[in-house]
Amino acid sequence: MPASPALPISDHDEHDALLRLLTSGAPAAAIRRLLDSHGSADTALRAGARDWASHGLDATTCNAIRTPDLVLLSRGQSWLESASHELIGWSQADYPPLLRRIPSPPPMLFVAGDAGLLWRPTVAIVGSRAATAGGCTNAAMFADALSRNGLCIASGLAAGIDAAAHEATLRADGATVAVLGTGPDIAYPVRNRPLLERIAAQGCVISEHLPGTRPLRQYFPSRNRILAGLSLGTLVIEAAERSGALITARLSAEVGREVFALPGSIHNPMARGCHRLIREGAQLVESPDEVLEVLAPLAIDLAKALRGELEASYAPPQAQLQTPLQPCLPIDPDYNRLWEALGHDPTGMDELGQRSGLTTAELSAMLLSLELEGRVAAEHGRYCRIGP
Amino acid sequence: MPASPALPISDHDEHDALLRLLTSGAPAAAIRRLLDSHGSADTALRAGARDWASHGLDATTCNAIRTPDLVLLSRGQSWLESASHELIGWSQADYPPLLRRIPSPPPMLFVAGDAGLLWRPTVAIVGSRAATAGGCTNAAMFADALSRNGLCIASGLAAGIDAAAHEATLRADGATVAVLGTGPDIAYPVRNRPLLERIAAQGCVISEHLPGTRPLRQYFPSRNRILAGLSLGTLVIEAAERSGALITARLSAEVGREVFALPGSIHNPMARGCHRLIREGAQLVESPDEVLEVLAPLAIDLAKALRGELEASYAPPQAQLQTPLQPCLPIDPDYNRLWEALGHDPTGMDELGQRSGLTTAELSAMLLSLELEGRVAAEHGRYCRIGP
Repeated sequence: MPASPALPISDHDEHDALLRLLTSGAPAAAIRRLLDSHGSADTALRAGARDWASHGLDATTCNAIRTPDLVLLSRGQSWLESASHELIGWSQADYPPLLRRIPSPPPMLFVAGDAGLLWRPTVAIVGSRAATAGGCTNAAMFADALSRNGLCIASGLAAGIDAAAHEATLRADGATVAVLGTGPDIAYPVRNRPLLERIAAQGCVISEHLPGTRPLRQYFPSRNRILAGLSLGTLVIEAAERSGALITARLSAEVGREVFALPGSIHNPMARGCHRLIREGAQLVESPDEVLEVLAPLAIDLAKALRGELEASYAPPQAQLQTPLQPCLPIDPDYNRLWEALGHDPTGMDELGQRSGLTTAELSAMLLSLELEGRVAAEHGRYCRIGP
Repeated sequence: MPASPALPISDHDEHDALLRLLTSGAPAAAIRRLLDSHGSADTALRAGARDWASHGLDATTCNAIRTPDLVLLSRGQSWLESASHELIGWSQADYPPLLRRIPSPPPMLFVAGDAGLLWRPTVAIVGSRAATAGGCTNAAMFADALSRNGLCIASGLAAGIDAAAHEATLRADGATVAVLGTGPDIAYPVRNRPLLERIAAQGCVISEHLPGTRPLRQYFPSRNRILAGLSLGTLVIEAAERSGALITARLSAEVGREVFALPGSIHNPMARGCHRLIREGAQLVESPDEVLEVLAPLAIDLAKALRGELEASYAPPQAQLQTPLQPCLPIDPDYNRLWEALGHDPTGMDELGQRSGLTTAELSAMLLSLELEGRVAAEHGRYCRIGP
């Protein structure tokens, strides 16, 4: 591709700066280091080539940042023009908190749909593309029950188990996240295009790849790493002995997350992978309750930890409402503001943000915490008080 | 029952002495202590009431030994008149070696059929009486493959999995042992009477109970203990969540034996017990090979240990044959005699015993060892050399 003329760095906003870093071909670790040092991609780009080189970028990459591939850049820019599309960089507060903790997290994520779901306690439900009918029924049964119990269901939009898990979650009006090994606008397999669109509209689709990126074999292990990294645990429904689902499960175990596997008949080749995982230490589960039993306390711990991180990283905003605290609520001005913003009528996240002045990330963690404590009910992405 | 007149102790042979101890109602541990002290039941009975009391027998029991219940005694005596019936006491060298190692081994065993099988490396195959058709097929498949690979298949003669395992082993001309919770002459369920008779004719039936003992609920956990104790491991094919098979498996684990369980569909209630065992640490197995892989080295270790025990407990018999040693055989006069006794025509255990002067227990351990080393072939209970 022909090199394009250097663009004046100062004119680019954060999205553009992130896109220039991504399309330069800079290694993910170097991009994260730059973002860590400078706090934003825009500031990083202003720092100049000497600084970039000190973060490990070679001359070719520095040159590619200066003279970006305009075709790729504009592809990202035009995708990001949609109000429902987002690009979340490593240094941003709303980068998914669990994904932040894996060994090589993606430096940025393209997000279509509700990015707030990336802060919900999530379980990955994965399995074979060539699943049996019984396997798909089991995937749907677990996705339905787990999503109705407040877990977000992540999967990979593949045929078979993945699609069954996404579909059942959408039917249950639950929260589902599709993690793609392609650009966020490319369905693979192609016949899952309508499903992709429904997830983007009702849930959330994410990818580390630039819009328009076609499926390549080497992208899928990395996709599996993100899927595992987003989730408190991975549930494998059916998997052959060599299968991407096993990779996701192992990556999940490697980053200290839970691994669950369904047993099956010894005559079902699609149960072999699950049996292998169970032998390697995965938890054998027969019912959604067993998954919830393990994940619910982890979700509560996570909510507490996130709340702590948020409190540590943000200066406490000035109290805007001076109403008396509910006796059962923690003595905390943010919680107090959220409680005031919440009514007995279900209210969406945007409205809660406007009423309370809290960010989506703050709201997500606090609402989750209140939901798990039984003080807030969530339905169809809207929240209301339980009790007075 | 009316007390019978005292019998002169000196007139009774070992079987009668064992029967008198058993029918006296003496606790199993006290009978074992008496046999340990005196080396035989006959000698123990000659020692008199003061000695019996010093081994923990109370006055009522001492009296019952002196004046045995003749009805019970003659029931045992008449059953033992058959040449294929045996009563093996705790102090006898042919008491099953693995059973000897459990916490409360039975002080004697009634045996119908080939007692030599009790020295063979054994796997217990157990499961639900209300097994599914698929479960019974799996039981038969595992019993067939494991018995063809030299393992003796023990089970409990119950309906369902037990019967399927016994039947398949008989069909494969393999070695099978039925461990009963009734007398050795009582089939439970009654419809398994023909199976009991075929096992007694082709394999081995054992019980700790006097012939004629009817099935009582409280006898079955003890039966399961013997089944687990005889075996290098227990394989559970299908079991409901509360089931005797689970008890056998847990007893097996308690005495340090292997526990294997087949997984199944999460919708099969008969897989629940297996799944529970797997969660508790049982080895999930999909194929007979996986069981063999674990048990074969244990069988070889056992053969070596038994050989060591036999050498330690018997004075070496005078060498009868002075032929040159086969270069591949251990330099050992007993092995040399056995090798000479073995020909290239399959020869039964009795004939080998007559030719070599070795006891059945010695022969069993040595033949097993040679078989596992690939030097001897066994078929239908007859043995021949492999190679020159």
